[in-house]
Amino acid sequence: MTSPLLAALRSEPVSHTPVWFMRQAGRSLPEYRKLREGTQMLDACRDPEMVSEITLQPVRRHGVDAAIFFSDIVVPLQAAGVDVEIVPGVGPVIASPVRSRADIDVLPGLDAADIPDIAESIQRVTAELDETTPVIGFAGAPFTLASYLIEGGPSKNHEKTKSLMASDPEAFSALLGKLAQMSATFIDVQLNAGAKAFQLFDSWAGYLCREDYENHVLEHSTAVFDALSGHDVPSIHFGVQTGELLGSMGQAGSTAVGVDFRVDLADAATRVKPGQALQGNLDPALLFAPWEALSARVEATVCKGLDLDRGFVFNLGHGVLPDTDPEVPGRIVDLVHRVSAEILGSRG
Amino acid sequence: MTSPLLAALRSEPVSHTPVWFMRQAGRSLPEYRKLREGTQMLDACRDPEMVSEITLQPVRRHGVDAAIFFSDIVVPLQAAGVDVEIVPGVGPVIASPVRSRADIDVLPGLDAADIPDIAESIQRVTAELDETTPVIGFAGAPFTLASYLIEGGPSKNHEKTKSLMASDPEAFSALLGKLAQMSATFIDVQLNAGAKAFQLFDSWAGYLCREDYENHVLEHSTAVFDALSGHDVPSIHFGVQTGELLGSMGQAGSTAVGVDFRVDLADAATRVKPGQALQGNLDPALLFAPWEALSARVEATVCKGLDLDRGFVFNLGHGVLPDTDPEVPGRIVDLVHRVSAEILGSRG
Repeated sequence: MTSPLLAALRSEPVSHTPVWFMRQAGRSLPEYRKLREGTQMLDACRDPEMVSEITLQPVRRHGVDAAIFFSDIVVPLQAAGVDVEIVPGVGPVIASPVRSRADIDVLPGLDAADIPDIAESIQRVTAELDETTPVIGFAGAPFTLASYLIEGGPSKNHEKTKSLMASDPEAFSALLGKLAQMSATFIDVQLNAGAKAFQLFDSWAGYLCREDYENHVLEHSTAVFDALSGHDVPSIHFGVQTGELLGSMGQAGSTAVGVDFRVDLADAATRVKPGQALQGNLDPALLFAPWEALSARVEATVCKGLDLDRGFVFNLGHGVLPDTDPEVPGRIVDLVHRVSAEILGSRG
Repeated sequence: MTSPLLAALRSEPVSHTPVWFMRQAGRSLPEYRKLREGTQMLDACRDPEMVSEITLQPVRRHGVDAAIFFSDIVVPLQAAGVDVEIVPGVGPVIASPVRSRADIDVLPGLDAADIPDIAESIQRVTAELDETTPVIGFAGAPFTLASYLIEGGPSKNHEKTKSLMASDPEAFSALLGKLAQMSATFIDVQLNAGAKAFQLFDSWAGYLCREDYENHVLEHSTAVFDALSGHDVPSIHFGVQTGELLGSMGQAGSTAVGVDFRVDLADAATRVKPGQALQGNLDPALLFAPWEALSARVEATVCKGLDLDRGFVFNLGHGVLPDTDPEVPGRIVDLVHRVSAEILGSRG
């Protein structure tokens, strides 16, 4: 038995379209909210028993074709020794933001020995799953980590980050180079422990114009994919609001590119090179619509995805929203499997 | 003397590129913050003396080529009788959100007689300006107004709005039809009072995929432009994050289309039909960069805009950020004027 997800990410034939959901693990599930009660986010992310259970919850409940490793974008920073906490209702808060060359020079690196818990978490998850349902590794991309470090937390406009990028491109490059090493190490540990694919999340890249992305960011995300190329596993590169960047993000070297819900899949296919799979892109807000309306959109997305003449993985075009009815994702999985099997079957 | 702004919006020849800034009036100016002290936002918007002064402040300080009428997206709703207030740090809050056909049926309309203050505000502004510096009228587009009404306030994901759109398209259409009348009336009053152009702001359209925009929104924004076509004034249609929608938004009937900072102007020109002017699109976060870095980006934007073979108005690709140094926009105006005059002069 091979995994439909791994085949689709490599643009190899499948008998049905694989499905997983960004943020399938987490706040939308009552079993997650119960398990997390009384535990801080970053403490949860470093507890292999908790991480493995949270990662497995949506696989059991929804019947998705992959587990996505439950973690947080700032875990590698914390593991490397950066003073960061996640403040509920705010997000990550960095005690000493990184804004000068001197700050960048003293930024610690991440070593595999810093994160034995991450390896153990992945091992626990893979022990519970058969090979049809792989674990997808996870890390934030260098630019996204840089924005948190420079701004000191989540930012609506990324003024300080863009100001450093424009005024001192060498320092900015030095910072992203260090962060690329962290991202790569964080994923490398997951792949060594049994993850069979990975997704690099560039949460904030969609706030850049393509010129800035190509001049200041692309080489560092490319370095992450290059560093992991020896693993020979499929990979996904995704960020929200990245319609203008899809072609550039594809050039970083992933097997597949994730598509924001704003972008028509057929348009995405004109921007991403042939043979590179696409993942996406149902609007997560539609999961709040009645099933009749939602199911029509799910079917339309499957049809569009299977018309692309390249690998296609069904996902949302952004993460599952916290208030989503936890029964809905599983119904979508069943529908995508059934509809795609019919279409693919009829093609012989 | 003719206005460079009006000429550029009509793709007619100009001797320099006109400049204005979205949100040029407002929180970035210390004279605004002083004037607003102790006055609620919606009270300020209905006070002609205050509105006219706030509208004129950035013209005096920055030397821009147009005034943009100072108002708020929800003013027409309030004027029509909807119970709405603007809560500092939150945004507009609607006392009774509109979520059913019955709610929609009882929604009041807007009559010119409801907003004599708006006419007086425009008259006061035009009395202070010569014809080279027109006042641009302002209104929110039907979809944006609908999202506020349905969600009850600002929303990150617009779940309720999209759910109504998907599940009851007829009710949704009835709502947007009523709101198109409000938007058009709000602008009509401004044009009758002396505004010489207008911009329709669809703040939330960028959260829709093109299919939803074309099926559920475009006809109602088109109705606004149609209703105002008798004025024979140039118009602009803009929303952030609308890269995928630019062509569709252009079809609504404006003279010009505003471009988000994420979109390369040359790409925008491939999506918007020939002869339709473009406005944009410097990243507002770059105004926090040192002048040397910022000025290079300003010049590059002017060069791109003048290479488009259609009208071009320099603006930001989103509004001026509140913490922007109030000295910076004026320096940009001077630079755009000088650089564009040189380029246009050398073309003879």
